[in-house]
Amino acid sequence: MAKVKALKCKECGKEYPVEPIHVCEYCFGPLEIEYDYDEIKKVVSKEKIEKGPKSLWRYVDLLPVDNPTVGLSAGFTPLIKAEKLGRKLGLNNLYIKDDSVNHPTLSFKDRVVAVALSKAKEFGFDTAACASTGNLANSVAANAAASGMNCYVFIPANLETNKIIGSLVFNPTVVAVEGNYDDVNRLSSEVANEFGWAFVNINVRPFYSEGSKTLAFEVAEQLGWKAPDAVVAPLASGSLYTKIWKGFNELKTVGLISDNPPRMYGAQAEGCSPIYKAFKEDRDWIVPEKPNTIAKSIAIGNPADGPYAVKVGKESNGDMEIASDSEIIEGMKLLAETEGIFTETAGGTTIAVLKKFAEKGAFDPDEVVVAYITGNGYKTMEVLEGHLNKPIHIKPSLQEFKEKVIGIKVEK
Amino acid sequence: MAKVKALKCKECGKEYPVEPIHVCEYCFGPLEIEYDYDEIKKVVSKEKIEKGPKSLWRYVDLLPVDNPTVGLSAGFTPLIKAEKLGRKLGLNNLYIKDDSVNHPTLSFKDRVVAVALSKAKEFGFDTAACASTGNLANSVAANAAASGMNCYVFIPANLETNKIIGSLVFNPTVVAVEGNYDDVNRLSSEVANEFGWAFVNINVRPFYSEGSKTLAFEVAEQLGWKAPDAVVAPLASGSLYTKIWKGFNELKTVGLISDNPPRMYGAQAEGCSPIYKAFKEDRDWIVPEKPNTIAKSIAIGNPADGPYAVKVGKESNGDMEIASDSEIIEGMKLLAETEGIFTETAGGTTIAVLKKFAEKGAFDPDEVVVAYITGNGYKTMEVLEGHLNKPIHIKPSLQEFKEKVIGIKVEK
Ligand SMILES: Cc1ncc(COP(=O)(O)O)c(C=O)c1O
Ligand SMILES: Cc1ncc(COP(=O)(O)O)c(C=O)c1O
Ligand SMILES: [Zn+2]
Ligand SMILES: [Zn+2]
Repeated sequence: MAKVKALKCKECGKEYPVEPIHVCEYCFGPLEIEYDYDEIKKVVSKEKIEKGPKSLWRYVDLLPVDNPTVGLSAGFTPLIKAEKLGRKLGLNNLYIKDDSVNHPTLSFKDRVVAVALSKAKEFGFDTAACASTGNLANSVAANAAASGMNCYVFIPANLETNKIIGSLVFNPTVVAVEGNYDDVNRLSSEVANEFGWAFVNINVRPFYSEGSKTLAFEVAEQLGWKAPDAVVAPLASGSLYTKIWKGFNELKTVGLISDNPPRMYGAQAEGCSPIYKAFKEDRDWIVPEKPNTIAKSIAIGNPADGPYAVKVGKESNGDMEIASDSEIIEGMKLLAETEGIFTETAGGTTIAVLKKFAEKGAFDPDEVVVAYITGNGYKTMEVLEGHLNKPIHIKPSLQEFKEKVIGIKVEK
Repeated sequence: MAKVKALKCKECGKEYPVEPIHVCEYCFGPLEIEYDYDEIKKVVSKEKIEKGPKSLWRYVDLLPVDNPTVGLSAGFTPLIKAEKLGRKLGLNNLYIKDDSVNHPTLSFKDRVVAVALSKAKEFGFDTAACASTGNLANSVAANAAASGMNCYVFIPANLETNKIIGSLVFNPTVVAVEGNYDDVNRLSSEVANEFGWAFVNINVRPFYSEGSKTLAFEVAEQLGWKAPDAVVAPLASGSLYTKIWKGFNELKTVGLISDNPPRMYGAQAEGCSPIYKAFKEDRDWIVPEKPNTIAKSIAIGNPADGPYAVKVGKESNGDMEIASDSEIIEGMKLLAETEGIFTETAGGTTIAVLKKFAEKGAFDPDEVVVAYITGNGYKTMEVLEGHLNKPIHIKPSLQEFKEKVIGIKVEK
């Protein structure tokens, strides 16, 4: 694999061979893929990408996989010019990157799982696993089923019903842990150490996280090989956010775009905002929290990539904001009513934060701004209870329709 | 619009101008778009299509719309080579056309609504409406919201909760009618006559139904401009099924494929199978039924296009079958466990019927067979209750994991 040089510690820089490992033996820093961009430059081109598969695998030259076998239809989701929402927010060039219709399980996690499990198969693993706030479990379960791997998914026991059923239907072993995501993650690390399974976001994490770069690649291609001026994205572990940044930077490095990468605006829920707080307090360390928010998919109190996300926020001249539970629901409704897109609580958080930054004047009206919608509303329906209008019940009669729906008094 | 000649009565052949009308004044037959295929041949080509938008609008030359403005991201969904399911069924070239991830509302209805509402806007309507078994309401509500139209959707009051919320979130007026779909449809026709609204599947139906042809166009393009040997598709009103057939025939007419169109296999639920019965009893008329099935989205007891579907079944050398409620659930699970695709009851019906035909030897092992998966499992989750394994609950401890999940006795 000429394109990948090594795994490299993000802290001390020590290099390791390309294996299913994720922590530096010397300093316990996380490992990241180190590419040979000169080699990549020789093979990559817009024309080659545009002729490639209609999935994230059109960017395989920038991913740490030789032989994609899992998630062959992942990615390649719509980028939508959000005219109505843009008008409300005073933005003339607002776009929604819509991973609520990602394939097969309706969240951006289908990207990271495609990369992680394709790599896991190259490594020879036959069992897929993960620690998840719900979406990741759905995607690991679906992709493991389709590719014939055994599957164990670990989730907090109190997840939304639909997210649990959305894993169970693929018939994996679902381990519901009494505790929050950070408890689930700790237990999963222990299991990963002892059973030789591919935990996509633990021992295969350096490969997994590269999948999120395709959210940058697709947006750039969809904008006609340009970077936006600013993006808004949600933060849980901080992986997605840092890798979108890495993706735009790589496009510039290999010559596929010439603009500077965008300012990175980060969104967290008020009830779980350790990265936001570190950013605002100018700390390079995270103070872990106990999550308490309806945005369960992004409720990570001790985020693995938190410090790197803070750094990206600064380096990109970005900013971070939080949304309360009721602002999150308003964000979900705002996106649905203006753009016809039904997102989950994480997407509601992103829209609420986009709105705050727009109102604060963070964007020039003509700047190109992209909001990343990372999950689907069907998975977190229960939060909408009591927040929507009700159906109007009538008998099948034109008279009842006129009276009860239109409010016309009908003579009898 | 040189490509469209007229609206033409499917029964008596009388022609009408291109207007929002759907019934022949003389014989009450349904109207259908009449194209000028010689004109279309002059402008259409594989190259032009392949350079077109990444949505169903790449086929605009074969659709009755001049200026697409609604549903700009609809269609262009994955075609998946179903290796694992194929192996189970003895089919070496089985494909799933996966509209469970269609944009924006996760069913094939996003196709017909894109065409119907784009046309409605050309006609100058400002209010969108429909009679729906759920999916159509979701799509009309979303697309009306995004395009700034007023919106009324009419549904049977006993629909699945998720399908109702999946409309309400876009804030249309939802009229829940106490009765079955056929009652809803009757009332909607009366409302359509009196209020000047665009009921996509009533007065705009000739345009609406053309959207389903894109399910044929995309499959042909995705197979490298070939027709499959056989397809399996569900039947409710019979529109989808007849228009897939029309789509493949048109591709041949205008020279984009050279093969014959596929044998058309139709799927209904046992609890609502008026088209299947007419087909089997060799009738060209439908005996209306009172639906009683979990497959609510395809529970139409008095299907508008029933007789035409029967005709297509015969003409194509196809066949029809039915699935019981428990076979439908098994179909949903089979597709999830083999291919990682979570579909709703309509898709479960399609898979159950595919399985029956495969077991009867209706297909040669090497034939190219495409099953149309038309909707998403998140919308009909309740039917799975009691049919899935349960999560295993544990405390966040490695010991509990080993004992309760793996079944290893751990020494204390
Ligand atoms: C819908 C959704 N959006 C965003 C995220 C954030 O992911 P990350 O951990 O990469 O920050 C998650 C994580 O689970 C998610 O489920
Ligand atoms: C998921 C799904 N599949 C198939 C159909 C069949 O549609 P048609 O009325 O065109 O036969 C419907 C109709 O509502 C549907 O919702
Ligand atoms: Zn190190
Ligand atoms: Zn007529």
